[in-house]
Amino acid sequence: MADAITPRAQDYSQWYLDIVQGARLADYSPVRGCMIIRPNGYALWENMQAALDAMFKATGHRNAYFPLFIPQSFLAREAAHVEGFAKECAVVTHSRLKLDEDGALVTDPESKLEENLVVRPTSETIIWDTYSKWIQSWRDLPILLNQWNNVVRWEMRTRLFLRTMEFLWQEGHTAHATRGEAIEETERMLEIYATFAEDWMAIPVVRGIKTASERFAGADETYCIEALMQDGKALQAGTSHFLGQNFAKAFNCQFQNRDNELEYVWATSWGVSTRLIGALIMVHSDDQGLVLPPKLAPTQAVIVPIHRTDEERERVVARARGIAADLRAAGVRVELDDREGFRPGWKFNEHEVAGVPLRLAIGPRDVENGTIEIARRDDRSKTSVPQDGLAQTVRTMLDTVQQALFDRALAFREANTTDVDSYDEFKELLDRRGGFFRMHWDGSAETEARVKEETKATIRCIPLGAAEEPGVDPVSGAPSKRRVLYARAY
Amino acid sequence: MADAITPRAQDYSQWYLDIVQGARLADYSPVRGCMIIRPNGYALWENMQAALDAMFKATGHRNAYFPLFIPQSFLAREAAHVEGFAKECAVVTHSRLKLDEDGALVTDPESKLEENLVVRPTSETIIWDTYSKWIQSWRDLPILLNQWNNVVRWEMRTRLFLRTMEFLWQEGHTAHATRGEAIEETERMLEIYATFAEDWMAIPVVRGIKTASERFAGADETYCIEALMQDGKALQAGTSHFLGQNFAKAFNCQFQNRDNELEYVWATSWGVSTRLIGALIMVHSDDQGLVLPPKLAPTQAVIVPIHRTDEERERVVARARGIAADLRAAGVRVELDDREGFRPGWKFNEHEVAGVPLRLAIGPRDVENGTIEIARRDDRSKTSVPQDGLAQTVRTMLDTVQQALFDRALAFREANTTDVDSYDEFKELLDRRGGFFRMHWDGSAETEARVKEETKATIRCIPLGAAEEPGVDPVSGAPSKRRVLYARAY
Repeated sequence: MADAITPRAQDYSQWYLDIVQGARLADYSPVRGCMIIRPNGYALWENMQAALDAMFKATGHRNAYFPLFIPQSFLAREAAHVEGFAKECAVVTHSRLKLDEDGALVTDPESKLEENLVVRPTSETIIWDTYSKWIQSWRDLPILLNQWNNVVRWEMRTRLFLRTMEFLWQEGHTAHATRGEAIEETERMLEIYATFAEDWMAIPVVRGIKTASERFAGADETYCIEALMQDGKALQAGTSHFLGQNFAKAFNCQFQNRDNELEYVWATSWGVSTRLIGALIMVHSDDQGLVLPPKLAPTQAVIVPIHRTDEERERVVARARGIAADLRAAGVRVELDDREGFRPGWKFNEHEVAGVPLRLAIGPRDVENGTIEIARRDDRSKTSVPQDGLAQTVRTMLDTVQQALFDRALAFREANTTDVDSYDEFKELLDRRGGFFRMHWDGSAETEARVKEETKATIRCIPLGAAEEPGVDPVSGAPSKRRVLYARAY
Repeated sequence: MADAITPRAQDYSQWYLDIVQGARLADYSPVRGCMIIRPNGYALWENMQAALDAMFKATGHRNAYFPLFIPQSFLAREAAHVEGFAKECAVVTHSRLKLDEDGALVTDPESKLEENLVVRPTSETIIWDTYSKWIQSWRDLPILLNQWNNVVRWEMRTRLFLRTMEFLWQEGHTAHATRGEAIEETERMLEIYATFAEDWMAIPVVRGIKTASERFAGADETYCIEALMQDGKALQAGTSHFLGQNFAKAFNCQFQNRDNELEYVWATSWGVSTRLIGALIMVHSDDQGLVLPPKLAPTQAVIVPIHRTDEERERVVARARGIAADLRAAGVRVELDDREGFRPGWKFNEHEVAGVPLRLAIGPRDVENGTIEIARRDDRSKTSVPQDGLAQTVRTMLDTVQQALFDRALAFREANTTDVDSYDEFKELLDRRGGFFRMHWDGSAETEARVKEETKATIRCIPLGAAEEPGVDPVSGAPSKRRVLYARAY
């Protein structure tokens, strides 16, 4: 039997870690800050990649690969960028190790680099250096590239998936001839992220724009999607940046426009990371373990045969094999768990902790009666259904579960989104139960900083499409044009 | 018009670079030693990954992800391993940059790491450290993991794809309860690589075992596949290592076997890299540019509409669209090149340089007659075929091209593999035309080193399944049991 999962109500952080470990998603590594993504976690990431990659390609993007290392001087070219990343860089200074006179392995001083290399925290600088060589004319535009890679931001307070020094992600980098086109791209990619979050991850998100203080280092505007976790904290689930001409100017990337004038190129960048796996866990899982949306679950249905005697075993497993083949043919990612030496209850628990959306149990009586028992992971309900037409039943149930997870998460978010007009009420509710708060903001960085300082809550975003609503900022007493979304965040 | 490709006969190295640049596969990066893989090159890599990944999964492997950074002390644990990699390591020594008093960006001395981190040159050490935590009993075995990732081996003499400081690859790492099982796995993976090379890349390979001096640092036995390039040099196209218990001992990874005894775990590792793209280029391409095997080509067929007037354009493009849709529905990766402002000849050249296996040209007369012209990239032959049944025609031709490329490469290899019994003849032929040489070897490291020193040729492998054939080593005059495969290599 796997170790028990700590209940959320008792210790939310421990619950999260118990699920990551219990479902074998990830493990700590000997390098502090780095994580090991185990096969169950990586299979989830592969499914997420496949869905996103198809959406990127359907909108004209192609994948490429730029170097892991960035010359230190590149970081310094864009003022906000260096300010944002210099303090969390892994710096390569030598290219060789050698044994010293005591036989200890040390850096070989003769291999000291002329210029340090930084392990990429993000790739704007090296990509814009390259684009400046590739782009001469409007005919070379747009460039719509993406890469799937690893990045490093120095970080010692590790939380598996949520906060790690190295993480996996994709970073899109596009170059455009006009401001309008670049903004359109920024918004298009935000919408792709929102669609992915809602349709695939079953996580409802708020689309919005970051305040100046929360912007990406080097962006003119950062768009984001924000999701609410079960502990009432927000998690930024994807960002899409309109970079203006900042990187084009820093790397002198000009093009001849249709009027034969030289102009700086307009840029966007956008990314989501393995952090999303943390969001997936925290939005859907329960005290029994991981809960996965069927569209992303590596295994959508597991079949557990139940039997006592060898004769029963033979009959039941034979039928289970046939059912597995039918389901597979119908496009269901199904696994037959006919491992010997494990009791059914042990297997049930394992698949429950691992978040398999549907568990099908079949015993001798089911074989006789032409039935099978289906247990839903999300609401733990059980039904006995006919084996006839099972593939269709399973597919329908997977869709039902997918929708139910989204609906539940949406209901939770709605129940935990509060309009507040008093700073005291805000602070009280924030401490008592967290959640999203729609509160007026006067638009000043001072107010924003004060709230952060006093409550640890930040403005998650200025929601897109929010109607103007004149009001008063309850923190400063100054007039406000609209409500913004506050929350404490991961 | 793209720049002309330097003919092979004139300057083979320049020919190679011209193809990499002309087909837009890769580019140099501002970091010496690193490369930028452009979308055309990366799409090829994606197809290679997909084919290999399916074969790995079909044989029970799962993907995972281990950290980029390896504690310096880990390298030192396995004596041969540190010897092999210490001299080519990117070493991370600091975690922060800061501005000095002159405003220059420098490493912050306060961020110096307690222990240096090495950017992984390969992951045996960090993986076996982890396996030692995961494995207790024979029930935990086998572990069959693979990862797709980037690795760094310091290297300044860059040749795009063939030799770069950072490259992309996959590395499989498996753990087994018995020696026999581990050797079986090593051989299974070699066979998967050979199948991939021959069936997908259309590159015939010799399967063999490396001599002790050419073994992977830390392996008991290194299996390899070796391919012959058009300039008569060999290229190692994949390796599969039987690691014995070396890493298990270095990281104290023991398990309780079925007899309740503690035993060290048996290991394998195996990998192929973006270097294979270099092999693909050098085996098949010609003086007109890249030639790609259809099974891996990102675009298998391109349709170029030909027209003069607007009215013609409309008719021809409409028909071309219908044809493209039909081909796509039949599973052909087809592209319709209806870009305006480019002459057909310009497009023909571009697709020829890019290695698209089939070019379909359609003009007004073809629309009338129900015909279309197909040009094969490999032999540059052209045929006019009916539009009726075109999907089947194209699929058959793609298969024909795939086979033709393999046959041509095999014929070339056979014509350039020579049995030699005289060292002088060997040296003369090696200089005159290169190729593979089957020559007797007395089994000594001295002879091997002497040949390498005197001719730059190395023993590529001891071919698997080669019959024993008593003879005399022509270099030393000592008796020999078999011929081995010598060549100069990339």
